Amino acid sequence: MSVEISEIFKAREVLKNVAVRTPIMGPTQLSDYCEVYLKAENLQNTGSFKLRGAYYKISQLSEEEKSKGVIACSAGNHAQGVALAATGNGIKSLICLPSTAPLSKIEATKKLGADICLAGSVYDDAYQKAVELKDKLGYTFVHPFDDPLLIAGQGTIGLEIIEQLPEANAVVVPVGGGGLISGIAIAIKTLRPDIKVYGVQAEGAPSMKISIDSGKRKTLDQVSTIADGIKVKQPGEHTFEICQKYVDEIVTVNDDEIAAAILMLMEKQKVVTEGAGASSLAAVIFHKLPVEGEKVVCIVSGGNIDVNILNRVITHGLVKSGRMVALTIDMPDRPGALADVSKAIADLGGNVISVIHERVSRSAHINSCLLHIEMETRNNEHISEIKEKLKEIGYKIVRSS
Amino acid sequence: MSVEISEIFKAREVLKNVAVRTPIMGPTQLSDYCEVYLKAENLQNTGSFKLRGAYYKISQLSEEEKSKGVIACSAGNHAQGVALAATGNGIKSLICLPSTAPLSKIEATKKLGADICLAGSVYDDAYQKAVELKDKLGYTFVHPFDDPLLIAGQGTIGLEIIEQLPEANAVVVPVGGGGLISGIAIAIKTLRPDIKVYGVQAEGAPSMKISIDSGKRKTLDQVSTIADGIKVKQPGEHTFEICQKYVDEIVTVNDDEIAAAILMLMEKQKVVTEGAGASSLAAVIFHKLPVEGEKVVCIVSGGNIDVNILNRVITHGLVKSGRMVALTIDMPDRPGALADVSKAIADLGGNVISVIHERVSRSAHINSCLLHIEMETRNNEHISEIKEKLKEIGYKIVRSS
Repeated sequence: MSVEISEIFKAREVLKNVAVRTPIMGPTQLSDYCEVYLKAENLQNTGSFKLRGAYYKISQLSEEEKSKGVIACSAGNHAQGVALAATGNGIKSLICLPSTAPLSKIEATKKLGADICLAGSVYDDAYQKAVELKDKLGYTFVHPFDDPLLIAGQGTIGLEIIEQLPEANAVVVPVGGGGLISGIAIAIKTLRPDIKVYGVQAEGAPSMKISIDSGKRKTLDQVSTIADGIKVKQPGEHTFEICQKYVDEIVTVNDDEIAAAILMLMEKQKVVTEGAGASSLAAVIFHKLPVEGEKVVCIVSGGNIDVNILNRVITHGLVKSGRMVALTIDMPDRPGALADVSKAIADLGGNVISVIHERVSRSAHINSCLLHIEMETRNNEHISEIKEKLKEIGYKIVRSS
Repeated sequence: MSVEISEIFKAREVLKNVAVRTPIMGPTQLSDYCEVYLKAENLQNTGSFKLRGAYYKISQLSEEEKSKGVIACSAGNHAQGVALAATGNGIKSLICLPSTAPLSKIEATKKLGADICLAGSVYDDAYQKAVELKDKLGYTFVHPFDDPLLIAGQGTIGLEIIEQLPEANAVVVPVGGGGLISGIAIAIKTLRPDIKVYGVQAEGAPSMKISIDSGKRKTLDQVSTIADGIKVKQPGEHTFEICQKYVDEIVTVNDDEIAAAILMLMEKQKVVTEGAGASSLAAVIFHKLPVEGEKVVCIVSGGNIDVNILNRVITHGLVKSGRMVALTIDMPDRPGALADVSKAIADLGGNVISVIHERVSRSAHINSCLLHIEMETRNNEHISEIKEKLKEIGYKIVRSS
């Protein structure tokens, strides 16, 4: 085994006054076929679990390494974890980011004490730059997942779960490069081998799953998912080996399922999660795992979701649940038609958000026009009611979405 | 005093296995002029503090009253609090709601074991119905705020704060009818009179503030705010008297300030709050209170925000912070113009969400058309960059919002 349980216990001592012992929320009402608990690492300092591993890794550097500082490459949680971990250890950090990274993330990383180096427009450019600077300036490179000390730091979550909810039957962990699940799996399988450890990857980035299924590390040509925290092309060497040995099963969830889980966590649990963070719950609520009747701890790995993405997730969820609808109506081009339609909608309690009235259109009859109307509604029955009413008073609905 | 501290201690015993002892989150980085802590009642069962008072009130009914059941009128947190409290006490509850209430709230209340009576289309209709049914059927009416036992239940939050953060200097409490702040103020001013207790109302519903300022209970003709949890026309008799005696100051915040606080709590603390719940933080971050350098506990009273409203809050916040923009461009009506504009935006990394190309328009020149284009951007500088580029290649921006 490349990481000993003793290393995880040691990490716990080091992290004692640094990382929050995040709460386990639950039992929740999120599933009706098993009892779901949430290990809320989105409430961790920096908004994700990444602080744990980065801090422990950096704390174990030699004095000489510390005097030179550390470097990392990330546009996300790892950047903030390393920045705070370095500052907490009293050493310098340099984070390389693509210049397209959201300003909010750049600012947050700076605020935690890191120097920032913007390089190129995609992750790979920033990575090249980080490697170049590391060699030139003697910084220690902090890998985002494939490092035994870092894995030991993430493993402290496993220790906490065993103590906080000893009656747990299964733990479900988001998997990107595999650092988080490796640490947790070592802790749990060493101390409580009866507890199942399941991994969840995004359907568009299943590198660890494919690697394990085929028995060797595979690299994906491309990855695509809203869960950028687990959008990784290739698992690590250490993490691959550990997952092969300790993880019971890895499943995938798609972006729609992740979005539904994000929305559910907001509405029912009042917590904000990023895509990766919600993927563990998505696997449970969409029945990907054999956990019927069990007490299941879903690791909510982080909460740093871009607000633009959150906005899209919510809109998508509103449309799916009938609380928002866009109708396109074929209308005769005569005075009063818009007023008629508006009144019918208002009478039924639909709340109009936007209207586009399009007179010239190839898809409409010569003497008609199209009205695109977007509105807030109560539910799918309410939408049906509005559509019925419009038909009843003589308007044709061309499209509803 | 209409509520004794002993009643609050008694309520605490009764609530021991019923209400969550919600965490105090912090110190947060939410303000740079004081140390903000959050008492997270949005993580309470039913998503708000209301369970505490309702449960204690119901637990103290006589056996005869219990055998008949309770009735309440609410489309919000009170409904869910009463439903769970009644079910927990093993008795029947009937909740009157206007038929326009969101289905999600109706379903949530049903799921907690209540019977539902839909009456009329506004709150007042439902209230009339509740009074009628109460008299007819002998139910006990559970008032949403003006009841000494209910106030004692809410006061348990005050006890928890004193224990969880004894070094607190001030507590900031959202105020609608005044039940929450009354309970908290009695607990704190009895045990720790050195801690300030501040109230916050919505600018569009300042009934308690106006009443206290004028020395008598006032009724507002109309109230308007996104914070429906504190949208109350008249303070209670008990609550008015208690606030007069114990509350240090009441201030107001407007909807924009509340929206900013909701967004800040989502982005920085990863928690979802409703308008009322975020109003306490809004008062602090917008400098309404004399708390410089102090340790301030903001009561986050609830998290049951309608997702439609949350969506609007986020969009509003995105536009304000330059992460979304809508441009209207005056374009010559010739082939290639749309392609030009699209390319310029894409080259600079703007992410187009929607496009409306309007050929016939009175506001455009005879040979031109208007292009309305909505896009995701990185920040205000990014927007300026895109606008500059469009001007440079010969397009006129008519409107930017």
